[in-house]
Amino acid sequence: MTTPRPAPLTRDAYRHLRRIELRWNDADRFGHVNNAVHQALVDSAINAWVIGTGTADARHDPVIPLVVETRCRFFAELDYPGAAEIGLRVAHLGTTSLGYEAGIFAEGAGEPAAQLLFTHVYVDRVTRRPAPIPPALRAALAALAP
Amino acid sequence: MTTPRPAPLTRDAYRHLRRIELRWNDADRFGHVNNAVHQALVDSAINAWVIGTGTADARHDPVIPLVVETRCRFFAELDYPGAAEIGLRVAHLGTTSLGYEAGIFAEGAGEPAAQLLFTHVYVDRVTRRPAPIPPALRAALAALAP
Amino acid sequence: MTTPRPAPLTRDAYRHLRRIELRWNDADRFGHVNNAVHQALVDSAINAWVIGTGTADARHDPVIPLVVETRCRFFAELDYPGAAEIGLRVAHLGTTSLGYEAGIFAEGAGEPAAQLLFTHVYVDRVTRRPAPIPPALRAALAALAP
Amino acid sequence: MTTPRPAPLTRDAYRHLRRIELRWNDADRFGHVNNAVHQALVDSAINAWVIGTGTADARHDPVIPLVVETRCRFFAELDYPGAAEIGLRVAHLGTTSLGYEAGIFAEGAGEPAAQLLFTHVYVDRVTRRPAPIPPALRAALAALAP
Repeated sequence: MTTPRPAPLTRDAYRHLRRIELRWNDADRFGHVNNAVHQALVDSAINAWVIGTGTADARHDPVIPLVVETRCRFFAELDYPGAAEIGLRVAHLGTTSLGYEAGIFAEGAGEPAAQLLFTHVYVDRVTRRPAPIPPALRAALAALAP
Repeated sequence: MTTPRPAPLTRDAYRHLRRIELRWNDADRFGHVNNAVHQALVDSAINAWVIGTGTADARHDPVIPLVVETRCRFFAELDYPGAAEIGLRVAHLGTTSLGYEAGIFAEGAGEPAAQLLFTHVYVDRVTRRPAPIPPALRAALAALAP
Repeated sequence: MTTPRPAPLTRDAYRHLRRIELRWNDADRFGHVNNAVHQALVDSAINAWVIGTGTADARHDPVIPLVVETRCRFFAELDYPGAAEIGLRVAHLGTTSLGYEAGIFAEGAGEPAAQLLFTHVYVDRVTRRPAPIPPALRAALAALAP
Repeated sequence: MTTPRPAPLTRDAYRHLRRIELRWNDADRFGHVNNAVHQALVDSAINAWVIGTGTADARHDPVIPLVVETRCRFFAELDYPGAAEIGLRVAHLGTTSLGYEAGIFAEGAGEPAAQLLFTHVYVDRVTRRPAPIPPALRAALAALAP
């Protein structure tokens, strides 16, 4: 392995947990939830949290987030049927960029199945040039501060 | 329209309801949950129900269900974020085939967003030839009788 | 089985064929492409065909198609790796509604793995009320007439 | 941004390229291919390459790969309709672990839309304990050496 592997964050490290039911076709023929599903779960949890703050409208906002980097380390396999819980916290908060740490837990588990880093850069919807994180969202993000 | 459109079944017509959180990428650029997601939701609800009866093991069973026909009528649009509830009941039960009626409801709604028919034929896992529905499953299906 | 099963259309019945590579997670633990993937393949083939005519812009058009009904009959299993070819033709063409027949073929196969009917109703993007099929698209659809 | 960003590899750095058609529901409401689709594309390209060597059978092999880490940096947006080409090469080859570098290119592009690292650990299918990479696969991987 080429990557140093710090111990993963446990459930209590996160400021928000969202439950998402796993689906039949999340699992592949190796009998576990496919790796690419993990990014979809975190993406869905982040967007739902952001929309839930009332500070964003994905259809009309002039400034939108682009994902510029994701990392995912896997610690355990998830399986269907069952649910995942996705924990979120802010790892860093810059002027135009924002990093979320996310843990994916089998329902009720303290130790994660996977831990991810999602880096967003806010951009102008039309020009796709970096733009400041909207102030209302920035204020709301305090709730996810570690 | 070429198809007669009977009134859709309401929530109370179903014998089982399963809640599935909608995901960011269930929605497409028309701003609603994509039509193909509806089959995935029902497929997931049926398989979870069957597995939950303790009468099936998708990895090892010598007899497995193949979907031979699906139909889906759409009545309303679903959107993310939010959850869908999938109602299930048995529409017909033959020797080797089985039809499920399913309704997809926005969480808490009485009127469906979509109503589907899923027809399963049980087959031998190796030969893919029709085989009788396993007796334990047949007994369990009584709980979904209309 | 409750449904009469006319013989499926063969490859030469279609006016347009689009090749789509199958993906690892199209297949489920029964060792075949999951049923819900078939709607996604046809949806993708129809939209690509429509966009390719130059008569539609999914992001801005004031009139957009909603899928109001789909039907799918399955005749054979598809598997990964491999590609599917999706055949399209118009089954009916009304004022505001439009039915596509689609066949899904294993690459190079003459007999379909599945045959689908997709019924679109055109609606106003904002009000979601039925609206006439745009004349430029109507003209283009002649190329898919059976 | 917290991550150093080396220049991405161009198309000619890869030893294998696989074309995968993009699908309607790969795109999300921000009008681009969703980030989680990138992992699915690479996963699909890797598995198809491995299966294509004739050295692996995902259904029966006693030793299977688990993805233990993925990283993805994004450089440009992809859109539907269109196709992606996925470039593959081996980044490191250990006794039980294996890293793939992958580039995702808009069809025909020299510069990537995204660059990924996928780390596989081979494990015993039943015990999920690390196991040596099968020798036949190890030999085949020479074709992906940088």
